[in-house]
Amino acid sequence: MGDMLTTPTVIVDEQILDRNIAAMARVMADKGIALRPHVKTHKIVEIARKQVDAGAAGLTVATIGEAEVFAAAGFDDLFIAYPLWLTRSSAARLVAVAQTARIRFGVDSVDGVRNAGARLGDAVRSFEVLIEVDSGHHRTGVHPDDVGEIALAAIDAGFAVAGVFTFPGHSYGTDQAVPAARGEAKTLRKASRSLVEVGARKHVRSGGSTPSALDADGTSLTEARPGVYVFGDAQQWELGRIEPSDIALTVLATVVSRDDGPVGRRVVLDSGSKVLGADRPDYASGFGRLIDHPQARIVALSEHHATVEFPSDATLPVRGSRIRVVPNHVCTVLNLVDEVAVVRGGLVVDTWPVAARGRNN
Amino acid sequence: MGDMLTTPTVIVDEQILDRNIAAMARVMADKGIALRPHVKTHKIVEIARKQVDAGAAGLTVATIGEAEVFAAAGFDDLFIAYPLWLTRSSAARLVAVAQTARIRFGVDSVDGVRNAGARLGDAVRSFEVLIEVDSGHHRTGVHPDDVGEIALAAIDAGFAVAGVFTFPGHSYGTDQAVPAARGEAKTLRKASRSLVEVGARKHVRSGGSTPSALDADGTSLTEARPGVYVFGDAQQWELGRIEPSDIALTVLATVVSRDDGPVGRRVVLDSGSKVLGADRPDYASGFGRLIDHPQARIVALSEHHATVEFPSDATLPVRGSRIRVVPNHVCTVLNLVDEVAVVRGGLVVDTWPVAARGRNN
Repeated sequence: MGDMLTTPTVIVDEQILDRNIAAMARVMADKGIALRPHVKTHKIVEIARKQVDAGAAGLTVATIGEAEVFAAAGFDDLFIAYPLWLTRSSAARLVAVAQTARIRFGVDSVDGVRNAGARLGDAVRSFEVLIEVDSGHHRTGVHPDDVGEIALAAIDAGFAVAGVFTFPGHSYGTDQAVPAARGEAKTLRKASRSLVEVGARKHVRSGGSTPSALDADGTSLTEARPGVYVFGDAQQWELGRIEPSDIALTVLATVVSRDDGPVGRRVVLDSGSKVLGADRPDYASGFGRLIDHPQARIVALSEHHATVEFPSDATLPVRGSRIRVVPNHVCTVLNLVDEVAVVRGGLVVDTWPVAARGRNN
Repeated sequence: MGDMLTTPTVIVDEQILDRNIAAMARVMADKGIALRPHVKTHKIVEIARKQVDAGAAGLTVATIGEAEVFAAAGFDDLFIAYPLWLTRSSAARLVAVAQTARIRFGVDSVDGVRNAGARLGDAVRSFEVLIEVDSGHHRTGVHPDDVGEIALAAIDAGFAVAGVFTFPGHSYGTDQAVPAARGEAKTLRKASRSLVEVGARKHVRSGGSTPSALDADGTSLTEARPGVYVFGDAQQWELGRIEPSDIALTVLATVVSRDDGPVGRRVVLDSGSKVLGADRPDYASGFGRLIDHPQARIVALSEHHATVEFPSDATLPVRGSRIRVVPNHVCTVLNLVDEVAVVRGGLVVDTWPVAARGRNN
């Protein structure tokens, strides 16, 4: 496959992808949790179809732009898991998307839900909102005690309140998945009681991230929204949540420069931050990993260069070699390319467009 | 302007842009250094035209894909400042671009230049190469002593050797611009002597980065390739190389969430890493800066969220406010959006497509 493709390029192994999709569907079915995968990870219609075919209850998106792309592709149940601040123009776009899909979106303040109601006008009754709660990630979301007040404001504005949601993003840390899943469950149960108090009896309790999903509590969550699990990435690998053999997406790169001299035993690949993304959490060993050279480390990354150091006993790849890189955070990679090469058994069998690439507003 | 635009969106102030382009042209003219700006920063045809109109001697690009876009737009003198490892297909693309533009490209090894010669076949005589030297950044490039051997291999393969080049990327560090410019000058002079020894008398000595450009040595460099200077960014601001009033590009964002409570005095903006990029050098105070709130700090960044902390004596912006964010590293931002809004005097006057967005191979 290597010679046909111009590097750097993104490759998806369809057999591993299918296996990952089936495995998460099975885990969630066993727990009795509805799976609503987050498609911001892949932004690819063909992959969303596989997820729904495997039993996903609907899709999660991050933006109205992503909702537009997936609604146009025929997906009719979308949750925008984000506290939208609507303007006249974004409200009009939301109303247009709701012609073909059930749209739920997030709110995390009385101001936000009142503004949304005012912007949507008569169309407000077509929409359901979920109230975001903070389960320890301290980004968006309110304390569970504040859920009742926002729910009442939402009802007052004309919305149906569909439930509560949280993102346990602090699961992305060494040994944090289990405590984050526990905090998620506790927070959602508390938030849920606040909803019951204001009369919203039957409702969704939505949580989930890829690291915490396997430990998600099926009695506390009714729905989970993992995204990264379809591909895996170096973060999940280094957090110990997946094996390298579960990684479905790599960036094919070429060795363009090589130094076996005094500065270090290193090569430079043509896969820089403009294809790998620049995310580098504290726990990461570098700016991505080499799947066939697990001992090597990407010690520096610029826009078109990845500098890779090899241990002293390893054979340094020659110039012109092709090497597969596992990005640290795969969600950023799919936002950088217009298409991916699909391989089965090492052969390129298809090209999928990244339909929602750049649709970030 | 705010209400018409959907956030997050990229805004370019054309008056500041024009001023930055004119200022760098003047500095380089005064030094007697030819300016060959790097267009990977902006990837926009309209901006490259302004640079050439202000006297740029040609353009620098990072990839064959960028060369294709700018050649198709009529630019006829392009330097691919990268040690290309050519394949059959990339050599064919290079030959096609050379139909309308003079193409020079980088080499940093005997292997690389021999491979390029073999792939280009009879077309080799249409191309000139520049040999990359390492002036302290330790990425690609060879020691000046090794230039002669590569030059002889290039001549042997049928190339004209146009000169030597370096990228003093270590200028991106506190107080590093002056020493980096000095190292650049010294390295290029040494490399130049190696070229003279093998008979390449008249040749280019190409250097430059935005931090080091103002200190570039006009007796050692014949050409400079700064890129970022057109826009400026938070890195240049925090390195003290520019004033905030020189920053021509910002990302317009909306306050979607707000916490004036026990966790901290913070707001969350809808400009995450999918529009700001995730670069965060050690010397940076955060993941970008707020141009109208210089005391605020972006303490966390995820794909669609920028968490901003405000000092205790500052007024916290209300939800729905629109705020302009200066990205840390502007070159990554233009690779994330399909177009930019152009403003003059606070009014949106145009939209420019990012013609080479995603053309990274």
